[in-house]
Amino acid sequence: MKILLVGAGGVGDSIAKIAARRTFFDVVVVTDYDLTRAESTVSWIQAKHGPEVARRFLADRIDASDAASVEEVARRHGATHVMNAVEPRFVPTIFAGALAAGANYLDMAMSLSEPHPTNPHEETGIKLGDDQFAQAADWEKAGTLALVGMGVEPGLSDVFARYAADHLFSEIDELGTRDGANLVVRDESGAEIFAPSFSIWTTIEECLNPPVVWEKERGWFTTAPFSEPEVFDFPDGIGPVECVNVEHEEVLLMPRWVDAKRVTFKYGLGNEFISILKTLHQLGLDKTAPLTVRSAAGPVAVAPRDVVAAGLPDPATLGPRMTGKTCAGVWVTGTGLDGFPREVYLYHVADNEWTMREYESQCVVWQTALNPVIALELLSLGVWGGVGVLGPEAFDALPFLELMALPVEEGGYGQPWGLEDRAV
Amino acid sequence: MKILLVGAGGVGDSIAKIAARRTFFDVVVVTDYDLTRAESTVSWIQAKHGPEVARRFLADRIDASDAASVEEVARRHGATHVMNAVEPRFVPTIFAGALAAGANYLDMAMSLSEPHPTNPHEETGIKLGDDQFAQAADWEKAGTLALVGMGVEPGLSDVFARYAADHLFSEIDELGTRDGANLVVRDESGAEIFAPSFSIWTTIEECLNPPVVWEKERGWFTTAPFSEPEVFDFPDGIGPVECVNVEHEEVLLMPRWVDAKRVTFKYGLGNEFISILKTLHQLGLDKTAPLTVRSAAGPVAVAPRDVVAAGLPDPATLGPRMTGKTCAGVWVTGTGLDGFPREVYLYHVADNEWTMREYESQCVVWQTALNPVIALELLSLGVWGGVGVLGPEAFDALPFLELMALPVEEGGYGQPWGLEDRAV
Repeated sequence: MKILLVGAGGVGDSIAKIAARRTFFDVVVVTDYDLTRAESTVSWIQAKHGPEVARRFLADRIDASDAASVEEVARRHGATHVMNAVEPRFVPTIFAGALAAGANYLDMAMSLSEPHPTNPHEETGIKLGDDQFAQAADWEKAGTLALVGMGVEPGLSDVFARYAADHLFSEIDELGTRDGANLVVRDESGAEIFAPSFSIWTTIEECLNPPVVWEKERGWFTTAPFSEPEVFDFPDGIGPVECVNVEHEEVLLMPRWVDAKRVTFKYGLGNEFISILKTLHQLGLDKTAPLTVRSAAGPVAVAPRDVVAAGLPDPATLGPRMTGKTCAGVWVTGTGLDGFPREVYLYHVADNEWTMREYESQCVVWQTALNPVIALELLSLGVWGGVGVLGPEAFDALPFLELMALPVEEGGYGQPWGLEDRAV
Repeated sequence: MKILLVGAGGVGDSIAKIAARRTFFDVVVVTDYDLTRAESTVSWIQAKHGPEVARRFLADRIDASDAASVEEVARRHGATHVMNAVEPRFVPTIFAGALAAGANYLDMAMSLSEPHPTNPHEETGIKLGDDQFAQAADWEKAGTLALVGMGVEPGLSDVFARYAADHLFSEIDELGTRDGANLVVRDESGAEIFAPSFSIWTTIEECLNPPVVWEKERGWFTTAPFSEPEVFDFPDGIGPVECVNVEHEEVLLMPRWVDAKRVTFKYGLGNEFISILKTLHQLGLDKTAPLTVRSAAGPVAVAPRDVVAAGLPDPATLGPRMTGKTCAGVWVTGTGLDGFPREVYLYHVADNEWTMREYESQCVVWQTALNPVIALELLSLGVWGGVGVLGPEAFDALPFLELMALPVEEGGYGQPWGLEDRAV
């Protein structure tokens, strides 16, 4: 297996660092538009693991916005798998470049949506991943696999959904992905500051887009942003967090392979963050269309959302100043195998202190990066396999969850996951 | 009396329109950096009141940022009074230009403050008006008057404070200016929108600066922004509004001439607006220092606060889409003339529907403009007079309040004010 890793930002860097402890691949070519970022990831591996490990990691330059560049780099390195680890707006070009190069493809976020032009808070327009699924026949014809949405959410959440359907439930009422954290960021003086642990640009995009919901009778439909608020109690000391509907890939993926009556995604933004996002929207500061603004150099055209992003710290730099845990999981309700009502939360928790110590990676970023590495290992072993455009729930969940939980000394990833039976 | 009106923005335009119904002056020279704005004010007066009235109004150009320009325009027109109606950052140059021209001077906001360099939430640094009071001797020597803070707040509020001291109380515990409104702005579809009725740039400045409080024992001191929240019940159907401490001129003016134990200013921002301002501050979007932001034309340097302002509608244009009332007043507590505890709210209310119909002026802007016109009339009549740098409370309040309340047909301004005795 020769992996072309596209992007050495927070998640790409973490993917390489996690892969450095595994032996299932021949090479990882770490690439970025900014070559020094790719080189810095390889240098870290060299310093941490020595030349023997580092020799399986190369750094190269790539232009993710150009399918021809992706194809050229993939061909030059004989890549068997293209691992997309950049912003979702680059999905179309990397997806096309991988197909053209005859390589398999994985990503952690799917092609972007467009709201319904006239009825955005009730009907879907172009949905997340629509552009990718429309090309499924091309991938089938090529005999290659595009494994889409294979991060933590989407990704591990979809694996949990498949596991629940195969091993825990005879009938599922709702597959509800629920994401929450108790992360706190402090400034130099120790005071808590507002600093989102994930790209604010992307967070605004997903939180202010109309959330999508799936119901068996109705299919996919949308609601107004921040709909159906609910306080969800997260495990492992995180506790109750206010969650709201958010547009997310799980809702588009799970119904294609797993039988359920309803599929939702709720993000534990918390009251404060929800109110900040609402304020940004109310003041038009979420907009991506440029606004004319006075400046010392005369009027300039800037997108308000870019100004918001420029004023906040880079999430990848927050690790050392952050404490707390992040939890990803799926809340499943329905009928258990015994015929009685059952309610289960399947989850995985990452602790920032641990991910920083072990990987110098912030926990949200690290948790995202863990899952595609496990998926790549299963593909290289032949345990997982297929052609076309498939989500994580198209594959058997058991080997994934077993490999993830198996202790490191027994050849696994040493990342136990949890199953919490909740009172019905 | 020859009046040089500096600024034909919202308030300047309203001052000219209010003056057009009075006869106490020889001429008002309406000036602006943008001559067409000054001309448009004069044209409105011509259209509304005819050539007989309009002949006492001239339009001219001025550069308020240049003391020499102010002096030159004042001298050329033989101005006896310079009426400053522009942003407070132009106070120093207009103040200096008027003094140099030998004219008297009035403003509605005083020279700006600078927070204490090391202890901004407890100690004052440079206070509002400090620069102006430092020049008091020059005005006394010149034998001319600078009447500072003569809008509605500061202005009418200071007149109320002096009235309370002279006619209602034997001893005053607190002079608490309290400002609140129930204004609502709607978009074309009739939906309520967020649109501040006053410059957001200035509102951020005054609300995020450390608020100043005065106490007899302690003198002037500051607190953290939004301190001492209190729900104040405003009269005339406005009702309860959440008010917080805000930096304002009254606190610097009243203690110089009126005896009280404590002087405060609380602005009825309401919960929503307070939370919006807090969010802007939390995200650094209140900052005036430029930030480097990506744009289609490459990186540009813009001040986040300018971006916020550019995204909101111009407050001067809101009148036709606004409904509701604004209330300015002073809540006075202490011992009445009968020796018993007394609590009084002295106030004036402006209704947007009425100000739009009568003056095509939005009510917040119109209420600010009313008071300097009354003051100019009292100065022209010789009822008010003095030299040096003086606040409105340095003058007898009674003739001001009488002229304001007297019906139009009896020669007054037809603007009754209220006195509400509150239970102690």
